[in-house]
Amino acid sequence: MTIDLDVQSRPAELRFKLTRVGVTGVKKPVNVRRPDKIVTLTTDFDIYVDLPSTMKGSHLSRNLEVVSEIVEESVREPVDSLEDLCSDIARRLLERHEYANNSEVRSRADYFLERRTPLGKRTTEKYCLTASAHATRGSVVSVSKCIGVEVVGITACPCAMETIRHNLELEGRNIRAEVPVITHNQRNRTTLALEVPEGLEVEANDLIDLVERSLSAPTYEILKRDDEAKVVELAHREPRFVEDVVREVLIRLLKRYEDFPDEARVWVRSESEESIHKHNAVAERVTTLGELRR
Amino acid sequence: MTIDLDVQSRPAELRFKLTRVGVTGVKKPVNVRRPDKIVTLTTDFDIYVDLPSTMKGSHLSRNLEVVSEIVEESVREPVDSLEDLCSDIARRLLERHEYANNSEVRSRADYFLERRTPLGKRTTEKYCLTASAHATRGSVVSVSKCIGVEVVGITACPCAMETIRHNLELEGRNIRAEVPVITHNQRNRTTLALEVPEGLEVEANDLIDLVERSLSAPTYEILKRDDEAKVVELAHREPRFVEDVVREVLIRLLKRYEDFPDEARVWVRSESEESIHKHNAVAERVTTLGELRR
Amino acid sequence: MTIDLDVQSRPAELRFKLTRVGVTGVKKPVNVRRPDKIVTLTTDFDIYVDLPSTMKGSHLSRNLEVVSEIVEESVREPVDSLEDLCSDIARRLLERHEYANNSEVRSRADYFLERRTPLGKRTTEKYCLTASAHATRGSVVSVSKCIGVEVVGITACPCAMETIRHNLELEGRNIRAEVPVITHNQRNRTTLALEVPEGLEVEANDLIDLVERSLSAPTYEILKRDDEAKVVELAHREPRFVEDVVREVLIRLLKRYEDFPDEARVWVRSESEESIHKHNAVAERVTTLGELRR
Amino acid sequence: MTIDLDVQSRPAELRFKLTRVGVTGVKKPVNVRRPDKIVTLTTDFDIYVDLPSTMKGSHLSRNLEVVSEIVEESVREPVDSLEDLCSDIARRLLERHEYANNSEVRSRADYFLERRTPLGKRTTEKYCLTASAHATRGSVVSVSKCIGVEVVGITACPCAMETIRHNLELEGRNIRAEVPVITHNQRNRTTLALEVPEGLEVEANDLIDLVERSLSAPTYEILKRDDEAKVVELAHREPRFVEDVVREVLIRLLKRYEDFPDEARVWVRSESEESIHKHNAVAERVTTLGELRR
Repeated sequence: MTIDLDVQSRPAELRFKLTRVGVTGVKKPVNVRRPDKIVTLTTDFDIYVDLPSTMKGSHLSRNLEVVSEIVEESVREPVDSLEDLCSDIARRLLERHEYANNSEVRSRADYFLERRTPLGKRTTEKYCLTASAHATRGSVVSVSKCIGVEVVGITACPCAMETIRHNLELEGRNIRAEVPVITHNQRNRTTLALEVPEGLEVEANDLIDLVERSLSAPTYEILKRDDEAKVVELAHREPRFVEDVVREVLIRLLKRYEDFPDEARVWVRSESEESIHKHNAVAERVTTLGELRR
Repeated sequence: MTIDLDVQSRPAELRFKLTRVGVTGVKKPVNVRRPDKIVTLTTDFDIYVDLPSTMKGSHLSRNLEVVSEIVEESVREPVDSLEDLCSDIARRLLERHEYANNSEVRSRADYFLERRTPLGKRTTEKYCLTASAHATRGSVVSVSKCIGVEVVGITACPCAMETIRHNLELEGRNIRAEVPVITHNQRNRTTLALEVPEGLEVEANDLIDLVERSLSAPTYEILKRDDEAKVVELAHREPRFVEDVVREVLIRLLKRYEDFPDEARVWVRSESEESIHKHNAVAERVTTLGELRR
Repeated sequence: MTIDLDVQSRPAELRFKLTRVGVTGVKKPVNVRRPDKIVTLTTDFDIYVDLPSTMKGSHLSRNLEVVSEIVEESVREPVDSLEDLCSDIARRLLERHEYANNSEVRSRADYFLERRTPLGKRTTEKYCLTASAHATRGSVVSVSKCIGVEVVGITACPCAMETIRHNLELEGRNIRAEVPVITHNQRNRTTLALEVPEGLEVEANDLIDLVERSLSAPTYEILKRDDEAKVVELAHREPRFVEDVVREVLIRLLKRYEDFPDEARVWVRSESEESIHKHNAVAERVTTLGELRR
Repeated sequence: MTIDLDVQSRPAELRFKLTRVGVTGVKKPVNVRRPDKIVTLTTDFDIYVDLPSTMKGSHLSRNLEVVSEIVEESVREPVDSLEDLCSDIARRLLERHEYANNSEVRSRADYFLERRTPLGKRTTEKYCLTASAHATRGSVVSVSKCIGVEVVGITACPCAMETIRHNLELEGRNIRAEVPVITHNQRNRTTLALEVPEGLEVEANDLIDLVERSLSAPTYEILKRDDEAKVVELAHREPRFVEDVVREVLIRLLKRYEDFPDEARVWVRSESEESIHKHNAVAERVTTLGELRR
């Protein structure tokens, strides 16, 4: 007689299905092919499958085995992108969890790009990549995947600038148009995620460029005196609310991915750590390319 | 000639509507009436409205004015609950933002309850309250609200216990049923949120009780030697996966709120900070009471 | 025969003394008397004693009992200050841990004050109080205590302003002195802690005022258009590096506490979340009033 | 006439020297040589120098230039260790900040090692490396450096185990010595830092091994049923307070580095995220090898 130690597969006493069961905070070094080189990304994963009402538990160690296998394959053969990696994991999760109908993978990693300051000095800037994938078991397994980026930059407030310009004029100080007017400016964190339809590709570096150009100005690690002045001036020439930033991202996205289908989902969020307040300002749009095109 | 300084109300150049625009991280001391006393909760708020495609910006200072007014009223007349407070804020947001059709308020506060340890010693335990409200403008304004709790307790793993019991038996060590078998146990954080239908009420303390009873055992701040042993034994008498915890919460919720309508939304999440792994285990169910009753 | 279950008091096999043993993350609602009212502060405590080389473990539940007792006394009779509370806890810790020679208590709580914006509008602003105490057993027990505050405000950079002013002049744009020049500005977090000598007192609100006046400008929760312009102008009239902020705090501290003894320890730290960089700028001085007076 | 735009070098109006001025949160990918390969560590840096009372500000961009240069050199020629990298940065900081007498560098990076579970299965485990360096200008520049590690593992409580064993005996349940008794166990985070004297070397992997063996048991990412049981049993065979963990680290350290000089500083901290409490337990020793040897 075999004693069955598979406690997870025992019938659940309380017969509710579960939306997702899995593990969070799994960190792994992943080798990813980038346009010009191979980089190692220290990546954080959350990995789930659903659970039918009939089973007591999910076999969580299988989630770890799947991530581990696929990440190890990336050591030998670097993956093309974090979203492809997530997609592979999501698909294999359904193979291993034969009782699951849905799998879900979320990942996040610091990422670095070389930049040039306004005056041409080379710097290394820090960004964040995010990627996710969902697999669904039907007659076949279908997978949807998303790629995302987080960009830190500067926003200058158009509203305070306008009031101050007006006040200066009232006081008879004829501010010439070419002299920028003071306003509050601050660190801004803008996130963009885009669904990548099957057969199409998104280059993460493009998304980063696109978001960075949507802010009042990019920020840089090393700014000597003249470069610092330049960044401040650039930001004041393009004062933007968080609302403006989100819309700038959306319009650039529409242009850049005009060949993408209407169904592709889009998520944009911009958060300014207001210098004149202790709280943050946020704007967000959750939508599809189709809705935006209307 | 009046110069219009209302930059926010200027026509948006990029005509995309925004899902939500608002402020995050607004902290306020709120006076709340509890069954037996009035408590001051240091509460964190996120407050949003949507923005039509025609307007450049949302008037964020109105969000702060609304929160400020309603919180100040609570100084004079304590609110009945955090979810009622959110509901009032959500409603007033739509009055002030005449261009918005949706408003959204999320809040979170540390909360303390007196407890008795298994052996009857009095302790003060820390929990977390969450509340949210969404208002929608139609022919009239309708508001939906949710109350939630976060409870920290202990879970003991049923799977390791079973394997170890089996191993002990194999080795001929006849473990009597009444002697508990070792397993890994750990800190668990379980969150429950429930929609509160109009005209009905949910007592936060009930939700906390309900979640706390769904864990392997509650945890306590002060445990002298015998109480400590008792809590450990209790936890080992009720080994539970995160999956079990979520289902225990669901079954208790169904019983406790059997008069609540099918539409009421439910969200349960249990996370164990696994002592044998560096990552966490999570189970989650997002559903409605109606779905659970089927 | 009694079996000794006091595992902590057993002789340590590895005979090293320990610098501190205790508990962290103990949260408690504390009632504190403020100049004009009694407030409840949700306070976070870390509580330690040292451990001799002869003992296996520290009796941690005693730490919790001490905090619990003293906090409960504050429900009946509000404490005068967080540092007095810490001082009482530190003293009682040495009574309970008869084997310990040092005790250490650190605490932290959100704290709110009513403010007036530049144009006189009332707002509630969020600060943070910190307090600590160390007790040492000698022929008698001596206790030292510190009070601290954390203030969020705005700093405007003097360096970028100067470069830009210079560039404008070079371009022949004769900027009149009274027209403020643009620069980057950002959220700044400045912390001050001061040792409170026995028999003397420090009012936390004074420390907050003192730090807030040392920044380029305070920040406010609610700023309608004209107030917003005012805060931006104020900040640009007082551009300050983090170095300047620390020194401004130090000079005010010397004036305000000129009757305090030379030995009183001082710790000031200012951190600007740079809007033109992804990293922060920090300045710090750790010293005594005596050193500052030299 | 040259206008001097070097605002930082202007005389300070408030003539206080500053303990440290610098930047925090600078992230960089660093190539480090490890025993068997080269790895890329996503490293977080804090970088400071002191500031004399005569100068208004520190030239912060120089800190970033120094880090950037030295990190870039690591792309071409991987560094031997994070502490050597910090040491190089600290030294070069004093070259660039001719007015500074002290420099300080702190760094931290996630780090991965291959491990074998008790039953021999291969897993990748996550650790954390920390390194720091201080340079002081005297007749020559002297640099001291530290290497540190953070290890997550499991601790099982000896006290609850003893009480429960006693209770079982009282109830006449003759627990044979070889059957492990239940207790609470939890995730533990232990940190060790050691000063590396000039001319000597410390291998980070050794420190990780040393700390990991000081816990009740290591933890693993992938544990199939029998391995899971094994880890739980191991942890229950070695029940340890945080006090025990710190002392186990100390004794191993003394043995492993017996050729290190007495002056070498040591810092050990162990924190258990108690499964039976909502707060953590902590033990810490700050000392030198010499003090430990006495």
